[in-house]
Amino acid sequence: MFRRLSSLSYALERLLDLCNPLEEREKIQIKDACGRVLASDVLSPENLPSFNRAAMDGYAVRSHETRGASQSSPVRITEYVRVRTGAALPEGFDAVVMLEDSFLRGNVLEITAELTPYRNVSRIGEDVRSGDIVLSCEHRLRPPDLALLGAVGIDEVEVFKTPRVAVIPTGDELVPRSCVPAPGEAREINSIMICSYVKLWGGEPQLSGVIPDERDAIKEAIKRCTGSDLILVSGGTSVGDRDYAPGVLDEMGELMVHGIRLSPGRPTALGAINGTPIVCLPGYPVAALASLYLLVRPAVKRLAHLSDDTQRREARLSRKIPSRPGYITFARVSLRDGIAEPVMVSGAGILSSVARADGFVLVPEDLEGLDEGEKVEVHIFE
Amino acid sequence: MFRRLSSLSYALERLLDLCNPLEEREKIQIKDACGRVLASDVLSPENLPSFNRAAMDGYAVRSHETRGASQSSPVRITEYVRVRTGAALPEGFDAVVMLEDSFLRGNVLEITAELTPYRNVSRIGEDVRSGDIVLSCEHRLRPPDLALLGAVGIDEVEVFKTPRVAVIPTGDELVPRSCVPAPGEAREINSIMICSYVKLWGGEPQLSGVIPDERDAIKEAIKRCTGSDLILVSGGTSVGDRDYAPGVLDEMGELMVHGIRLSPGRPTALGAINGTPIVCLPGYPVAALASLYLLVRPAVKRLAHLSDDTQRREARLSRKIPSRPGYITFARVSLRDGIAEPVMVSGAGILSSVARADGFVLVPEDLEGLDEGEKVEVHIFE
Repeated sequence: MFRRLSSLSYALERLLDLCNPLEEREKIQIKDACGRVLASDVLSPENLPSFNRAAMDGYAVRSHETRGASQSSPVRITEYVRVRTGAALPEGFDAVVMLEDSFLRGNVLEITAELTPYRNVSRIGEDVRSGDIVLSCEHRLRPPDLALLGAVGIDEVEVFKTPRVAVIPTGDELVPRSCVPAPGEAREINSIMICSYVKLWGGEPQLSGVIPDERDAIKEAIKRCTGSDLILVSGGTSVGDRDYAPGVLDEMGELMVHGIRLSPGRPTALGAINGTPIVCLPGYPVAALASLYLLVRPAVKRLAHLSDDTQRREARLSRKIPSRPGYITFARVSLRDGIAEPVMVSGAGILSSVARADGFVLVPEDLEGLDEGEKVEVHIFE
Repeated sequence: MFRRLSSLSYALERLLDLCNPLEEREKIQIKDACGRVLASDVLSPENLPSFNRAAMDGYAVRSHETRGASQSSPVRITEYVRVRTGAALPEGFDAVVMLEDSFLRGNVLEITAELTPYRNVSRIGEDVRSGDIVLSCEHRLRPPDLALLGAVGIDEVEVFKTPRVAVIPTGDELVPRSCVPAPGEAREINSIMICSYVKLWGGEPQLSGVIPDERDAIKEAIKRCTGSDLILVSGGTSVGDRDYAPGVLDEMGELMVHGIRLSPGRPTALGAINGTPIVCLPGYPVAALASLYLLVRPAVKRLAHLSDDTQRREARLSRKIPSRPGYITFARVSLRDGIAEPVMVSGAGILSSVARADGFVLVPEDLEGLDEGEKVEVHIFE
């Protein structure tokens, strides 16, 4: 039996307290920077544009010479320069008249619209001025940001390092994926799920080999993760006589949570060793998935300076979702045309239930389930 | 002037008609398959579990021997086997009694709960039966799916090939990003945005060098893209005397759309050459971004067999968004606490406006803008 079950919100709070956004930074080229987070403000070394630029095809003119021009009383000028979009405005000119507002008669240009100064001109520094902050510290770089950086001549940026997340699968019964398990054995499959999610969420997974259910072996495996920003131990987290992970955590550091009122996902533990946060994930894959989404995802995102918004969709339940009062239920649903259909299976080990699901709904702990027709928020599985 | 402007919906429909989901497939290892789309149903070669498995720590028993057991009248049995979670149920036993429902007195096991057959047992094939379809063709592989495939011993899957998207930047004024542009020149920056998005959206960008504004050079560049599934030409798409891209498309194949009632984004063209779809994207980066999101994104997603859901958030406008009637307006907004703040800039070239924006709102073409306080759907920029 668990000594004391924690609420999910308490567990998350403790975990996030342990996960400080990384301060380490590195310089990388902008071509590799998509999705990374700036570790300092980026100041533009240049004006953009760096010259007064024609914003239209037409003629560069002096705006004051067009005063009073209209369709009915065109103005005629003799000093003008033909320019194309993007061209530098020649010295001494301050506006561009569009082709449709002008007519060339021999050497004389007839203009049928009055122009204000810098009409149809992108002025020096109109987009960005030299010294401006183009992008601020903590900004996540998206493709148009890379274009903006490129536009002002920046090829390298300082970004926060990617959190290193150690993944330690444990269990005597586990065999490599390539083996055929004998009775009593199981393929080690949680790590491919854990590592893939860590990558998607902005971390760098560092996978260890499978560790047997032995106190010392687990200790050694954890000790080898000194450089990690977060340690995930998979399996051996419950209260059986060979569930060593929480005890090892207690011995080596501080065990803060063991057992969460989350279904599936109860046998989750967390704490810290020398300031490094550790989450012990249940071995049952659906329970592991629940803990990954509800604890590890926000933790990795926080370490990486990323917001932890999941993609969500509103939907109505096609059927009741039963739940265990006192527990937050991680209910898998499939989604079609705004209708969420609960994937009805109970076992925390039934991975095929996730294959049929598009996302999950959380049933709050103070409810005894959600009713048919109820409006729910579906978090889409990445 | 554009001969005939098309609506965005017409343009999108024509483009999607040209973009058939790729039929080419390839075999890849599951460790590399996250985010890829299955090109065939995957049948399980095995039962999962492959043996009757204890789902709890406890004792394997014969369920019929527990008949009538309760707290007040325990049943005593002498044939049982201690099992741990995950162990194979020994031959001849059909249920597992939990530790809390049993008590060992010498060699006799006292049981205080009646068990039905297979209680606390994961039966052979309970999760997946041999021959079952575990995942269907067209399914996008997510981390738990990889775990499921691994669990049934599948290490390789057949997926659809990634669409190859040729990106051809054009423009006499363009210089490489590493250069300092002279007056009249500009750094070539659209391709880093286009290629980064193509990658995010599930395509494989194939970038060509910068092509000058010359009819034959553009033709040659397009001809070199024979293996591509989609061709994106950047720049030279308007109606100026050096905007050759749409004319080249018309000459080499079929120009279906030139000019879209989209602001910014009007000078977008599209069509096909020998069945390969081509989109000519405006050179102004914000206009290019609008066309990328509203046309290229759905096109790439369709080629890749992916759904084109963007991440969206509901919000209220902090201020009016003016718009040009008859045109769909691609309005950039920043987003905070459910309030969408329009980023007020007009120029299609003002890339810094996108840096300050979190996403975009589309103003329908039949409206003259959206009012302060109005509820809008914000598409979040990836």
